[in-house]
Amino acid sequence: MKTLINKVNREIPSYIEGYGEVKPYAGPFATAPSGERSSVKLSCSKPGDSKLVASIREALEKCQIKDGMTISFHHHLRNGDYVLNMVMDEIAKMGIKNLNLVASSLTKAHEPLIEHIKSGVVTGINTSGLRGEIAKAISKNNILGKPVVFRTHGGRGRAIEAGELKIDIAFIAAPACDPMGNMNGCEGKSAFGAMGYPMVDAEYADKVVAITDNLVEFPLQKISIPMIYTDYVVVVDSIGDPEQIATGATRITKNPQELLIAENAAKVLIASGAIKNGFSFQAGSGGSSLAVCRFLKEYMKENEIKGSFVSGGATGYLVELLEEGYFNTILDTQSFDGVAAASVAKNANHLEMSSSMYANPHNKSCVAHQLDVMILSATEIDEDYNINSLTGSTGMIMGAVGGAPDTAAGAKLTLVVAPTMRKRIPIITDKVTNVVTPGETVDILVTERGICVNPNRKDLQEALDNAGIKTKTIGELRKDVEHLTGTPEKTEFGDTIVGVIEYRDGTVIDVIRQAK
Amino acid sequence: MKTLINKVNREIPSYIEGYGEVKPYAGPFATAPSGERSSVKLSCSKPGDSKLVASIREALEKCQIKDGMTISFHHHLRNGDYVLNMVMDEIAKMGIKNLNLVASSLTKAHEPLIEHIKSGVVTGINTSGLRGEIAKAISKNNILGKPVVFRTHGGRGRAIEAGELKIDIAFIAAPACDPMGNMNGCEGKSAFGAMGYPMVDAEYADKVVAITDNLVEFPLQKISIPMIYTDYVVVVDSIGDPEQIATGATRITKNPQELLIAENAAKVLIASGAIKNGFSFQAGSGGSSLAVCRFLKEYMKENEIKGSFVSGGATGYLVELLEEGYFNTILDTQSFDGVAAASVAKNANHLEMSSSMYANPHNKSCVAHQLDVMILSATEIDEDYNINSLTGSTGMIMGAVGGAPDTAAGAKLTLVVAPTMRKRIPIITDKVTNVVTPGETVDILVTERGICVNPNRKDLQEALDNAGIKTKTIGELRKDVEHLTGTPEKTEFGDTIVGVIEYRDGTVIDVIRQAK
Repeated sequence: MKTLINKVNREIPSYIEGYGEVKPYAGPFATAPSGERSSVKLSCSKPGDSKLVASIREALEKCQIKDGMTISFHHHLRNGDYVLNMVMDEIAKMGIKNLNLVASSLTKAHEPLIEHIKSGVVTGINTSGLRGEIAKAISKNNILGKPVVFRTHGGRGRAIEAGELKIDIAFIAAPACDPMGNMNGCEGKSAFGAMGYPMVDAEYADKVVAITDNLVEFPLQKISIPMIYTDYVVVVDSIGDPEQIATGATRITKNPQELLIAENAAKVLIASGAIKNGFSFQAGSGGSSLAVCRFLKEYMKENEIKGSFVSGGATGYLVELLEEGYFNTILDTQSFDGVAAASVAKNANHLEMSSSMYANPHNKSCVAHQLDVMILSATEIDEDYNINSLTGSTGMIMGAVGGAPDTAAGAKLTLVVAPTMRKRIPIITDKVTNVVTPGETVDILVTERGICVNPNRKDLQEALDNAGIKTKTIGELRKDVEHLTGTPEKTEFGDTIVGVIEYRDGTVIDVIRQAK
Repeated sequence: MKTLINKVNREIPSYIEGYGEVKPYAGPFATAPSGERSSVKLSCSKPGDSKLVASIREALEKCQIKDGMTISFHHHLRNGDYVLNMVMDEIAKMGIKNLNLVASSLTKAHEPLIEHIKSGVVTGINTSGLRGEIAKAISKNNILGKPVVFRTHGGRGRAIEAGELKIDIAFIAAPACDPMGNMNGCEGKSAFGAMGYPMVDAEYADKVVAITDNLVEFPLQKISIPMIYTDYVVVVDSIGDPEQIATGATRITKNPQELLIAENAAKVLIASGAIKNGFSFQAGSGGSSLAVCRFLKEYMKENEIKGSFVSGGATGYLVELLEEGYFNTILDTQSFDGVAAASVAKNANHLEMSSSMYANPHNKSCVAHQLDVMILSATEIDEDYNINSLTGSTGMIMGAVGGAPDTAAGAKLTLVVAPTMRKRIPIITDKVTNVVTPGETVDILVTERGICVNPNRKDLQEALDNAGIKTKTIGELRKDVEHLTGTPEKTEFGDTIVGVIEYRDGTVIDVIRQAK
């Protein structure tokens, strides 16, 4: 088998069965696109046309679903999503097989998919994340029989726009929808907030089905996806479990270690000079990430600093910063909690953006490229600063690619917050199990036990030195940790590839092999 | 020369030099699209990319403008537009020739175009309207030497989306723009309101240049055209003359005859049963059209009727109806006055829509197809109810196609308001000089001297009869008028075709021949 070695030193077959030819990752901006945006069949409409259909079954029939098609879903309903399962169950009943599933991500709500994979209804999966039982069944037992394709949020938008992912039918969960298929995600009992992922699906899918539990009169007044893209509207009792869709405001961690890391991260950011008037910022919702905002807020208040925008993945805490005037604007693809969801509906400066506007490297601008500061978390980080957020050291898939590679490539300063160990397994390793975010786009690691600056950022090292902030090399920190934990044994992998990790530009940055 | 006769009985060459093969008009919904939406070259962006260029010249050079390209403009700055002339002058200085100009419309501000046509800089024109000196130079002296292509607002969006009009460079006048090219039309000293036409250009042009006199910090908060489509941003002192861009609220006519026609029209609409809860409505800004709203408002108030949406072309008077709660929503491609422009910025239920969402028959829904009532005006109407709004009886081009064919085809009830004569020239004729809106999409004519119902709408005739509203046949009304005016002499036309009038679906409904 012919193999190639990409720019993060991963040896990858040049052709992967079930995926195709591999374009090797060559650096964050080394691979330019060629060709044109995907074409879509022209449609037509007449006065009096109705898009309302009585059931998901009828929508599927009218879309002429058939074996081998590519269908798409989005994960804004998170663990509360009913839509993907309702549609897949109906498809299974119809006897349709061999579908290629394009999800923006998959959550534990989607575990019924396991049966649809085993029965051959679903034979291809494209997603950003995979966790729990589905992940286990795929990475351990290879029930799919071919690799799952993992893409970044920006990379998903890019692949759809470029026609690499040609969607036949897009299913869109719409918390508010009118009879002609104008939709938004922020009104109604199943509101989830920003609707960034299916905006792209709607534009490039041949058929678009809106599934709603809140049919409103024409015209919907806040339109996130316009009717010009919608073919059918199905009204169901409920598109999701409100309790699982959007919980209250995401809480900032109270874990002392996470708070310590966050405080250190804030100090590093301040020392770097990045926290100044007009700066922009993104932080994830988990662990230390969000807590960094709290410490930054104090500094911004004291020094009367007003930021420009925060992007995300918005949380209630970011909404608080917006409403208190610390930032001008939130740019949001996906609201992480109920407070953020409500803010999309009410705050004119809380803007939705498509995943293409968020992070697609192959349009004319994306928000990720305008970021000053990005705070990431990591499952593993290696001495080259490569980050893994998708697989565990056991080789099990248990996370997501998300927007990390997009924002790390885009932000002027990318800072990783992580504890040095989890359950006595060290985070820092000589070589991450899988590379998700390449080290050359990562600038600083902040842990509870030390701060490390990527040697390619001498300017940052100098700024931290000048501020009297102690740093270590990442090799030193690794040794310190392994002194406590011991050097973990490496998992052994076979040849079977159960996942392909695409970088945002469509090159392959790594593959996930089945553990032995 | 091979000719064909289309469904409105116009004899048209089957091939027109400078235009191409003719697809004959075959009925309002008889011609379905084939093929796919236009492809656009993929782009890419990097962090730190700047889109700001120092001058229009630099933008033209970076866009690699060259002979024979297609370039587009929009007419939201109306008579105050500086942008088209600034760009064309620079292009002329560069020695570029043989450009195909795609304007959403042309106004008297654009008369310097005459020189660019004469000098061969512009050798093709696509527009919705043409008036004044340019129109005279083209229709009388044929300075272009080939036909101008006239399209409806929906037809322009359709042609661009279908790739029939492939735009190389779109120039967008942006009253508010940030350095990455996020734009809106409703903020800044040159605000014009809704930005419906260039929304389509931005999406489908290979290169997009934003020209602004109001550069704001990134990110602009109200985004009508997102940066994902913008290549370059040019800052100039002024994009237009504010006094000519948007005057105060459009006044309702005080002309007693126009008011009489409007009152009659309102009675007819009420008698038809169309004015009921949830009805939707569009009216032009001129003459009697807007006055109809005033009479309808009284009826709605008395009968506690609340409408759904008004679309347009919004005026200050429609904003008043919105703010007073007579309608829920304004859907707007182009704000006709300053009050409407300001409303786009402040009223969350005054929505902008692209010209495709407004009226393109070849997407999955357009607003025009959701209309209950449309009020049109006319330069001429014939006994088949065909309407001319583009040329005078002398054959001179002096008007626009606009959204009339789109909304007439879409609305359940299309009512024409017109005086029976202008300067002693009768409006009703045996055969309009040019067909712009086909009679089969027109239902009622209301004049100061009589009301006529299209015989294909027996239901409406019956409703009016039941309400005791007197009607005449259009032939009778014509005779009444000609009894006063005499039968006008017909203009004689030669063979030279100076204009092609496309129906909204891309078929040819008529051609404009040069008068002898």
